[in-house]
Amino acid sequence: MRPLLLSCLLLALAPAASAAEAARPYRSPQEILDASPAAHWRSPDPDNLLYMELGGGRVIIELAPAFAPAHVANIRTLAREGFWDGTSIYRVQDNFVAQFGDVDGEDPDKARPLGSALRKLPAEFQRDAAGLDFQPLPDPDGWAPQTGFAEGFHAGRDPAAGKAWMAHCYGVVGAARNAEDDSSIGAELYVIIGQSPRQLDRNITQVGRVLRGMELLSALPRGPEPMGFYDNPALRTPIRAIRMASQVAEAERTPLQVLRTDSQTFRDVVEARRNRVDGFYKRPAGHIDLCNISVPVRTPPLD
Amino acid sequence: MRPLLLSCLLLALAPAASAAEAARPYRSPQEILDASPAAHWRSPDPDNLLYMELGGGRVIIELAPAFAPAHVANIRTLAREGFWDGTSIYRVQDNFVAQFGDVDGEDPDKARPLGSALRKLPAEFQRDAAGLDFQPLPDPDGWAPQTGFAEGFHAGRDPAAGKAWMAHCYGVVGAARNAEDDSSIGAELYVIIGQSPRQLDRNITQVGRVLRGMELLSALPRGPEPMGFYDNPALRTPIRAIRMASQVAEAERTPLQVLRTDSQTFRDVVEARRNRVDGFYKRPAGHIDLCNISVPVRTPPLD
Repeated sequence: MRPLLLSCLLLALAPAASAAEAARPYRSPQEILDASPAAHWRSPDPDNLLYMELGGGRVIIELAPAFAPAHVANIRTLAREGFWDGTSIYRVQDNFVAQFGDVDGEDPDKARPLGSALRKLPAEFQRDAAGLDFQPLPDPDGWAPQTGFAEGFHAGRDPAAGKAWMAHCYGVVGAARNAEDDSSIGAELYVIIGQSPRQLDRNITQVGRVLRGMELLSALPRGPEPMGFYDNPALRTPIRAIRMASQVAEAERTPLQVLRTDSQTFRDVVEARRNRVDGFYKRPAGHIDLCNISVPVRTPPLD
Repeated sequence: MRPLLLSCLLLALAPAASAAEAARPYRSPQEILDASPAAHWRSPDPDNLLYMELGGGRVIIELAPAFAPAHVANIRTLAREGFWDGTSIYRVQDNFVAQFGDVDGEDPDKARPLGSALRKLPAEFQRDAAGLDFQPLPDPDGWAPQTGFAEGFHAGRDPAAGKAWMAHCYGVVGAARNAEDDSSIGAELYVIIGQSPRQLDRNITQVGRVLRGMELLSALPRGPEPMGFYDNPALRTPIRAIRMASQVAEAERTPLQVLRTDSQTFRDVVEARRNRVDGFYKRPAGHIDLCNISVPVRTPPLD
């Protein structure tokens, strides 16, 4: 045994702090997950899952058609037509993003054909809050009037403006653009690999979130050029293929389930993280930020 | 040219939003830094700098004796006596920490000798706010009554309790401990490599912050075992040596300067990041979180 950060290991001993919870012994997030009913988990639609195949393994991205329907439709087209096969991760900037796609995308002589994908899309920075089942978090957040989850994604909401949007948290996938709002088409994508750059919220179209394989992106060597680009092509990470899960034979799909953010299990996990009561934490925070919450993903149990 | 996140590249065109700033054209953080007077930069004391020598290069950590005097004193002793030479980075957990030191530290048969370092230290989770020049940020933060900077470090402060502490932001270095508050001695250290785990604030003694070389820690392969440990010793990253800069011949030191957090230049950079007014940002956030601010570090100019 060596000195650890024991936060994940210690069993809960003391009762929770709040009066409402006082009668119930504290359960760790893992204990809550272990006791969760099957109905609190969902299996993402294979038509919303992107499989990015790297030499080191598979990155699985869940797309968010509820937030960026035009971009998601274009991404589905690009994946189905093999647009990204043989492209690369060409930018990794420390504490910021890993970005991938066609590094020559803006060079008319060298750009890959976009096939039947659209060349122009509307900006989808936010959407109407109406019609969205938004599950707010208890704590205030200086970045947005409200934060919470919707459709399983980290989100912000402005009740006065009647708008909602995806939040730039760790693992979120956005559509890189140039200066114009509507200059993204979903061909060049980035994944957040550091402290959440929430100043980008409502400034870029976000299209989804990594469910599995973050360590294949976050541990890549940082690009030596400004903003993390690799001018030397040999340093880029090759992308063997990106496919919709629905294109992949069932036997080759990765079985996984995501905890429903509208479930009591999820609310309990968030609360157990807001106020950690165990042998390690001496001072429970009584607070959690949106981007400190990761939505649990699991391999479906066998029974 | 390929689609970029242009945030760092575009020149400022529009005037800043607030009335007080209306007369002055917006300047990007880089423009502000380029115009900064020499007096706004400081050269850290070589007796507060740790050089960690890895195969890939040097990681430079600034220690924080104002927050953790006993731990910093012990770390100086350990470095001067070569305690870490030949140890390893034995844990890298995605979106959390890279941890290093003596992996056998708790095995009495295999632990390295601690030399003249102390075997027991007080917990230094927080300190009296009195006597600390605390520079508060303008925005509220749900994690602490106040956040800001002190002695160049990201910090929280509770005026009612009269206490201040270092905040767990990207690059901050903490002293791993077991369940007991006072079970850390500074021999096992961790560096935050992901979303700021602010729930650890006031729960662990923090000892400093990485000034240079974060990419040598953040891009390491994640440990396959739970909590990011590498049980296979071959996967650990060897540490050639850790030395105080003051032990290293002047010719082999890394020249660097850190922007003073009590300078007008720093305040201007923070404000320029709170409200980005350039061709890329369509909606300035009007907000910044403590851990979204990195304190600029530079190689001293030649003139």
